[in-house]
Amino acid sequence: MVVVMAPNATAEDVARVVERVESAGGKANVSQGVSRTIIGLVGDIDAFHGLNLRALAGVADVHRISDPYKLVSRQHHPDRSTVWVGQGAARVPIGPATFTLLAGPCAVETPEQTLEAATMAKAAGATILRGGAFKPRTSPYAFQGLGADGLEILATVGAELGLPVVTEVVDARDADLVAEHADMLQIGTRNAQNFGLLQAAGDTGKPVLLKRGFSSTIEEWLLAAEYIAQRGNLDVVLCERGIRTFEPATRNTLDIAAVPVVQAASHLPIIVDPSHAAGRKDLVVPLSRAAIAVGADGVIVDVHPHPETALCDGPQALLGTELRALAQAARQLPPLVGRMPAAAGNVTN
Amino acid sequence: MVVVMAPNATAEDVARVVERVESAGGKANVSQGVSRTIIGLVGDIDAFHGLNLRALAGVADVHRISDPYKLVSRQHHPDRSTVWVGQGAARVPIGPATFTLLAGPCAVETPEQTLEAATMAKAAGATILRGGAFKPRTSPYAFQGLGADGLEILATVGAELGLPVVTEVVDARDADLVAEHADMLQIGTRNAQNFGLLQAAGDTGKPVLLKRGFSSTIEEWLLAAEYIAQRGNLDVVLCERGIRTFEPATRNTLDIAAVPVVQAASHLPIIVDPSHAAGRKDLVVPLSRAAIAVGADGVIVDVHPHPETALCDGPQALLGTELRALAQAARQLPPLVGRMPAAAGNVTN
Amino acid sequence: MVVVMAPNATAEDVARVVERVESAGGKANVSQGVSRTIIGLVGDIDAFHGLNLRALAGVADVHRISDPYKLVSRQHHPDRSTVWVGQGAARVPIGPATFTLLAGPCAVETPEQTLEAATMAKAAGATILRGGAFKPRTSPYAFQGLGADGLEILATVGAELGLPVVTEVVDARDADLVAEHADMLQIGTRNAQNFGLLQAAGDTGKPVLLKRGFSSTIEEWLLAAEYIAQRGNLDVVLCERGIRTFEPATRNTLDIAAVPVVQAASHLPIIVDPSHAAGRKDLVVPLSRAAIAVGADGVIVDVHPHPETALCDGPQALLGTELRALAQAARQLPPLVGRMPAAAGNVTN
Amino acid sequence: MVVVMAPNATAEDVARVVERVESAGGKANVSQGVSRTIIGLVGDIDAFHGLNLRALAGVADVHRISDPYKLVSRQHHPDRSTVWVGQGAARVPIGPATFTLLAGPCAVETPEQTLEAATMAKAAGATILRGGAFKPRTSPYAFQGLGADGLEILATVGAELGLPVVTEVVDARDADLVAEHADMLQIGTRNAQNFGLLQAAGDTGKPVLLKRGFSSTIEEWLLAAEYIAQRGNLDVVLCERGIRTFEPATRNTLDIAAVPVVQAASHLPIIVDPSHAAGRKDLVVPLSRAAIAVGADGVIVDVHPHPETALCDGPQALLGTELRALAQAARQLPPLVGRMPAAAGNVTN
Repeated sequence: MVVVMAPNATAEDVARVVERVESAGGKANVSQGVSRTIIGLVGDIDAFHGLNLRALAGVADVHRISDPYKLVSRQHHPDRSTVWVGQGAARVPIGPATFTLLAGPCAVETPEQTLEAATMAKAAGATILRGGAFKPRTSPYAFQGLGADGLEILATVGAELGLPVVTEVVDARDADLVAEHADMLQIGTRNAQNFGLLQAAGDTGKPVLLKRGFSSTIEEWLLAAEYIAQRGNLDVVLCERGIRTFEPATRNTLDIAAVPVVQAASHLPIIVDPSHAAGRKDLVVPLSRAAIAVGADGVIVDVHPHPETALCDGPQALLGTELRALAQAARQLPPLVGRMPAAAGNVTN
Repeated sequence: MVVVMAPNATAEDVARVVERVESAGGKANVSQGVSRTIIGLVGDIDAFHGLNLRALAGVADVHRISDPYKLVSRQHHPDRSTVWVGQGAARVPIGPATFTLLAGPCAVETPEQTLEAATMAKAAGATILRGGAFKPRTSPYAFQGLGADGLEILATVGAELGLPVVTEVVDARDADLVAEHADMLQIGTRNAQNFGLLQAAGDTGKPVLLKRGFSSTIEEWLLAAEYIAQRGNLDVVLCERGIRTFEPATRNTLDIAAVPVVQAASHLPIIVDPSHAAGRKDLVVPLSRAAIAVGADGVIVDVHPHPETALCDGPQALLGTELRALAQAARQLPPLVGRMPAAAGNVTN
Repeated sequence: MVVVMAPNATAEDVARVVERVESAGGKANVSQGVSRTIIGLVGDIDAFHGLNLRALAGVADVHRISDPYKLVSRQHHPDRSTVWVGQGAARVPIGPATFTLLAGPCAVETPEQTLEAATMAKAAGATILRGGAFKPRTSPYAFQGLGADGLEILATVGAELGLPVVTEVVDARDADLVAEHADMLQIGTRNAQNFGLLQAAGDTGKPVLLKRGFSSTIEEWLLAAEYIAQRGNLDVVLCERGIRTFEPATRNTLDIAAVPVVQAASHLPIIVDPSHAAGRKDLVVPLSRAAIAVGADGVIVDVHPHPETALCDGPQALLGTELRALAQAARQLPPLVGRMPAAAGNVTN
Repeated sequence: MVVVMAPNATAEDVARVVERVESAGGKANVSQGVSRTIIGLVGDIDAFHGLNLRALAGVADVHRISDPYKLVSRQHHPDRSTVWVGQGAARVPIGPATFTLLAGPCAVETPEQTLEAATMAKAAGATILRGGAFKPRTSPYAFQGLGADGLEILATVGAELGLPVVTEVVDARDADLVAEHADMLQIGTRNAQNFGLLQAAGDTGKPVLLKRGFSSTIEEWLLAAEYIAQRGNLDVVLCERGIRTFEPATRNTLDIAAVPVVQAASHLPIIVDPSHAAGRKDLVVPLSRAAIAVGADGVIVDVHPHPETALCDGPQALLGTELRALAQAARQLPPLVGRMPAAAGNVTN
């Protein structure tokens, strides 16, 4: 059983719930998140039912854990959620009413390359800047990213262009550092079940972009989101980025059906990453169109001013013509599926 | 090495090629198709090059078999093909300029059910009627279709509504019978590498709708198409219908990226079957939208007047609201990807 | 509901069952196999229960079809079966008490190559000769086998060495021809759900070696066996030969656990094909040892006197040292899992 | 390019290498491990070749990084390695000359349960005790292990029975704590690409048991091992534990061929975990026999005194009869593949 406290619940409200649970012989595990507190109850569920916890001050909701995931489920939260990224006037929504384009370089390499890529991204209508400072790489001998220096570059460029930034965190020990520089933390596909990292990201209180593990079932993915939510952080955006199958023509197989499947099961927003799914530049625009048409809440793509010299995933980065085609799709298609179009950019690359 | 004869090549033209090949010590395997003849050469390729076969009367093309597939490849046939289904005025195109909707019941059960479903299909804008008379079923105890009786029903209903019909052939021994009743033969996913059936379907000279094997790579799928083409029948339409993966939320995983991948590799038209990929009615419309947006040449869906009593795949058959949503998408989306919209139907169900 | 007639049931016995079923308003589908007849009942199951069909002359068994497969299930047939291959004194068992080695060339190429390979196979302890005359090939331009000539060669060599032969049938129209020349018919992995072929093979009355589809679940595989059994032919031997996964180091992934899983679910014998699973010669002996140790009823391997010139799958064919290692394993390991060892051969290659 | 220092290299030796690299305009990344130091060189490889680094004091080896993995490759290290687990007289080898049985409870629950399970394990011939204190669980609501308390229990029981212990570490921040209590650190399947954790485990200097990611290719798995080795820790034992496929009959598909494939590619020892691969008790003994016969250097299995009340993976834990059968296999089979048998236990459960 899980007690979800209201955002404005006080420490006294929490203590009262704990006290009542313990008085009934149960155990209460308090997860104090930045924006709200979640209390997990262990013990005799039937006894807990008699406690009428829902009536206590500061309690927003009480769930039985019969479903495998609960806080991210749409069952008790029928309206789909909107997650806001960034601060103040620059806040950008990701949710059911809009279509949001996130773009930027796979890896932050230099201030110049990052600024150039970000400018291209913005011109194409992107309202959130992506870029990797910490890169999880299959080989220890591959470029691992600029680390803290990369975070600085990304934050500076984002501020200059007025774009909130999202970047990956790969180690729980870096979560706070990344949260200081970024508006949204990304959990990558290889960390889909790195539970300590999921919890650490949740603890920062910043929105989290949770990529699907390339071999995670949708249920496992939603349970990973539940790990973040269970820390009191419900600002989670899911990202479908392809799954591992037997087909070698694409790097992974984009599971486009995952978008409506997730939207039926969870209230969390879901976006699509066609760049990493395909690993081929020529597929990014058609797959982006498919993502918008299927009803995704956004698309995240790689752009790079000089793909041929990119330190990471150059073959999939968009340029010129493709970027213009993407911008066009992002303006034309969303209204046909009941959404506001992406910001009108001005692609000149 | 493969010699593709022109459609109007004579028997003498063919004999001349064979003679010249044999005079060079080679062996010529003649596959006389209904619309054209294909001659495969075995022996010393270098010697064949000296024969200047391309200059002979009736020879349309000569290919080296360095690529795994040749006749269906786009390499030597850069323009994408259009396949025409049906006769005379009722002919319907499937190809790069149009978007074609194929719909009908998974299985032909009765004349009434078939007529009702076909009427629904036509009202939704479908211009080709699908329906199964021979059903390949995983269990020998499942409904196997009405067989020849089903073919009769389907042909009658198609004629009544003016819709060409496509139906599955599951056994090479039935190919001629099916070709007598149908405008297009379907090869199902379980027969993706039933090479005798592929050849028999090719031999009928009727257009063939070749579903992807649920575990076929795209290369294997194009090689299966090559088996049909090698019989002189280039009227092949490919159909992506989902592949087998680890994800249980959908019956199969729709490989939406296969559409642009195939279009880059082959000149053959390609359509999408969202009903069988998903196995869930609620996903059919979003996946159809994705298919149109990604650039598919058509979509094929299950409709049934009474899904709850369907003998086959009832849970995925469309009805009422969904069908209207599909009809709307089939009119609105194709123009955004440079195509003629599907026929304007009048969904009243 | 399915009625299994006894092998010695008469036409009158069958007619009596049909009559009684029809008198109750049901429909009886009679499948008259070579060795026994199977009658499938369609209609009101409750009514059939009152008919007491089990008491009629010639009826061996009556099953409800609640399980997906029935005739091959171990549920109603707890003892594991032995299938005998070949005639008279040369009959060879495949079953729970023995370990049987099947070996020979992937493809029959010439009489000399076949005799040489068969001699090697026999020397290694093989008691059944395998060899392909009809080869299903992914590409229409690959060697398709010698066809009928290959069958002749194989039968001649088998007779000369006193070895029963097994060979693949790829087309239902060839089933009788193959059955005339072979002691056992093989259904290959690509025909795992070619239901017409399964039925045609069953109809020949010869034992059938049913390879697992490279993407078939174990349940689908047993249902394919049920298609054969449902024709009155229970002499089916299953063959695990690897499944398609994401791992590229081997051609397929040998699902070694399928052996005990199948043995728990079905009474049919099961053997392992390590050559086609691995596609690499160096893995064949270790995988054969694993197959024996896990409890397989036999192993089938490729041997070729000159693998470097083989027309099919040369890289996986055993020679010399490996063959001696296999022969040794086939003698030493079976007794440790409660079986008779393979025939003592005399490997001199 | 990578410089592997000898175990007894001094700080001066390392400094000399760095100096020489930098003098040539390169960059040297020093990874100082507990048992040896690894120096990665970035820059102009051709220039480095002129430095003759291999001749410097304290340098054990110099590798070019042309292969994806280098330190764990067998290419430059043809003899297969033996990893020793534990201290002093209790040291246990895992390597090519022996067969090692590791057993214990999936999760440490209580001192009594752990002692009982360990006693069973030892009686069956196990020489290393396994047990989980930190459990990575797909759901945040599942039992997550006793944590530090579990480590204490495990260490105490191991010491009492004279068995070195291996236990999982799930978070880089816990690596030192786990290393204080355990003789070997396990990296679980969900952390196969948690690179920070791999490095942290490598840094402890304790032997590491690296489970294969359930969706890792063999190459990715060896690259994960390279992450550990690159920290100067070559005491890595690989563990095949099944991969994710489409087959639902077993929890995962044991890739038995991975054992000889890995042994051909890497010098590291490799063992098999049939319990987690199968998820079914009845398959553990046959799969263990297969693992020994295929040539695995060890097997690791779950045992539990009361599987029906186990907090984790009870359905796969061995008891009584199965444990005796496993002990017998572990004594009889290894000599047939050229190994010392597992320690003779005395199974009385």
